[in-house]
Amino acid sequence: MYRLICRDGNAKRGEFTTVHGTIQTPVFMNVGTAAAIKGAVSTMDLQGIKTQVELSNTYHLHVRPGDQVIKKLGGLHKFMVWDKPILTDSGGFQVFSLAGLRKIKEEGVYFNSHVDGRKIFMGPEESMQIQSNLASTIAMAFDECPPHPATREYMQNSVDRTTRWLKRCKDEMARLNSLEDTINRKQMLFGINQGGTFEDIRIEHAKRIAEMDLDGYALGGLAVGESHEEMYRIIEETVPYLPLEKPTYLMGVGTPENILESVERGVDFFDCVYPARNGRHGNAYTNHGKMNLLNAKYELDSRAIEEGCDCPTCRHYSRAYIRHLLKAKEMLGLRLLVTHNLYFYNNMMEEIRGAIEQQRYNEYKKAKLKGFAEGEA
Amino acid sequence: MYRLICRDGNAKRGEFTTVHGTIQTPVFMNVGTAAAIKGAVSTMDLQGIKTQVELSNTYHLHVRPGDQVIKKLGGLHKFMVWDKPILTDSGGFQVFSLAGLRKIKEEGVYFNSHVDGRKIFMGPEESMQIQSNLASTIAMAFDECPPHPATREYMQNSVDRTTRWLKRCKDEMARLNSLEDTINRKQMLFGINQGGTFEDIRIEHAKRIAEMDLDGYALGGLAVGESHEEMYRIIEETVPYLPLEKPTYLMGVGTPENILESVERGVDFFDCVYPARNGRHGNAYTNHGKMNLLNAKYELDSRAIEEGCDCPTCRHYSRAYIRHLLKAKEMLGLRLLVTHNLYFYNNMMEEIRGAIEQQRYNEYKKAKLKGFAEGEA
Repeated sequence: MYRLICRDGNAKRGEFTTVHGTIQTPVFMNVGTAAAIKGAVSTMDLQGIKTQVELSNTYHLHVRPGDQVIKKLGGLHKFMVWDKPILTDSGGFQVFSLAGLRKIKEEGVYFNSHVDGRKIFMGPEESMQIQSNLASTIAMAFDECPPHPATREYMQNSVDRTTRWLKRCKDEMARLNSLEDTINRKQMLFGINQGGTFEDIRIEHAKRIAEMDLDGYALGGLAVGESHEEMYRIIEETVPYLPLEKPTYLMGVGTPENILESVERGVDFFDCVYPARNGRHGNAYTNHGKMNLLNAKYELDSRAIEEGCDCPTCRHYSRAYIRHLLKAKEMLGLRLLVTHNLYFYNNMMEEIRGAIEQQRYNEYKKAKLKGFAEGEA
Repeated sequence: MYRLICRDGNAKRGEFTTVHGTIQTPVFMNVGTAAAIKGAVSTMDLQGIKTQVELSNTYHLHVRPGDQVIKKLGGLHKFMVWDKPILTDSGGFQVFSLAGLRKIKEEGVYFNSHVDGRKIFMGPEESMQIQSNLASTIAMAFDECPPHPATREYMQNSVDRTTRWLKRCKDEMARLNSLEDTINRKQMLFGINQGGTFEDIRIEHAKRIAEMDLDGYALGGLAVGESHEEMYRIIEETVPYLPLEKPTYLMGVGTPENILESVERGVDFFDCVYPARNGRHGNAYTNHGKMNLLNAKYELDSRAIEEGCDCPTCRHYSRAYIRHLLKAKEMLGLRLLVTHNLYFYNNMMEEIRGAIEQQRYNEYKKAKLKGFAEGEA
């Protein structure tokens, strides 16, 4: 249940109550694809870096270890030892991006597993069943992720099918939640808006899914190659047609800059692999932009990545030490960087919530963007 | 300063006071070769798994990031954020096992770096200087690690040179400890007994180095290919010629069984890479022998690796989850295993100390070995 606490312009400050606790929004979900955060960060560590929601990938877990295995072990929360909210995606995105040869039909998608080539079928019902087995807090509807760019005709057909699939997802989720042996019988369902950069298709689709009274709504198919400006325009034009009294989730986005701009346009939920991916490349997020710890100038730098940062990495370890670990290919280096980066995102969301509450979001955003642009002091 | 608290047979229960705190012995040192424990285990984590002493490798740190860099950053303790004792080896073992083409001369060893092929010279003075720059709590003498097997003549010449080198190490350490800008001016020095499996050479050497009044004595060149029985025999025959009122360190050993047998023969200090190496192969140490978590039978096993184990891994995570992480090649799997394995060793040492205090070491050892041999319950 979403409660809108206040607005500052179009920016929303809310809270979303689930069976696994209340999420303060706007929120950044921390990605743990295969029921584990990359970089050897444990769920115990997440408790110390302001993580509110963990996100796992349905496709990966279906393939390995298998959602039936996770169900037998009591669901994803027990499996990975995390009692706060978990959102699972529908598997659709991975089917369309990772899997081998695939065929899209009205009933769903036939494809080959990227692990062992095994033939798999996934449709709306299968996605809901898998997510019900995983027993996440929030399930995502099974949609088609259209290629970018796509023709108008392709997009319209795809979006129409995604709407029909959404109805089937909703029905199947209701059925699963009514079953005795379902682990989380209050599993929530978010619908996904598609339409690429065709704003009229986006808006029409938003209106149609808004009527379906789902627990939340996502914007899918963005950050797939279009410019940032185009993405912001689509968000700006579509969000007004999604229910204000429900959370809006911008899937797979993005940089700190993207998040600041999107919060301003009314987005509540985010997720992105950047904190981990940047860690792998030696990059740390700071209030003065990204810092590459592999840079020789940090060899003798005994300061924390960001002075004053309260993350477990900055509280203890120096730039010089982390640089050494990265150069020596010690796994600990990646862990320390990912920990800092996730904290940076989670902490920025906390700042964002405070700024909206205090009706100074625009000022906050400008100052933050200025700092990023200025670079290291 | 070593204080012998009590003995049970030849097993010693002692404490070793250093500038970085007191070490309760017998002790297992946790290996952090390049100033980092393998498996993304941080020095903060070490505080929760009963680690008393961290061991780093002089050769690795000399090559990268460089001991001068670490000195400028305030020494190894500050660099890796660990305020308890650190032992550094002399670099000798790595020079003889890792480095490329090498030439042994009276002054020291000429060799090529394994990282960039650069020519390096290391002799007793250089090893002491590097370890002084690292500012470890305990430095190890620079010795030759003779090949195994070696002829009697080779061994005798090598051991004689090692004795001459030890004298130079002691003089150089005294000089370095007297310098104003030395970080740890109370750096301790352990000598190393060599002699392969020639017990008369071992004993003669032990007598000669015992006279040199060092802070501790190590048995080197064991566990290099000889049988366990031969190793135990050498320990048994040599330890009586090393000072009882100093700690005895068996370098690079070994399995839990090896440790139990060696404690019984009077050894105080141990170190070994097995906890990390076994983690990499999916093996966890338990009181019922090693368990390979990759085994299919753990797929649905929701129990801890070892029920009742108080390590951070067993307190939270299941065999099934760790198995999944290993199969999915998630770094977290290795971290959880290494954490458990280090705790297993550290905790066993605590049990060993208790058993010696209570004069029931032999009984404890037998029960422990029986458990290992029985396998999983």
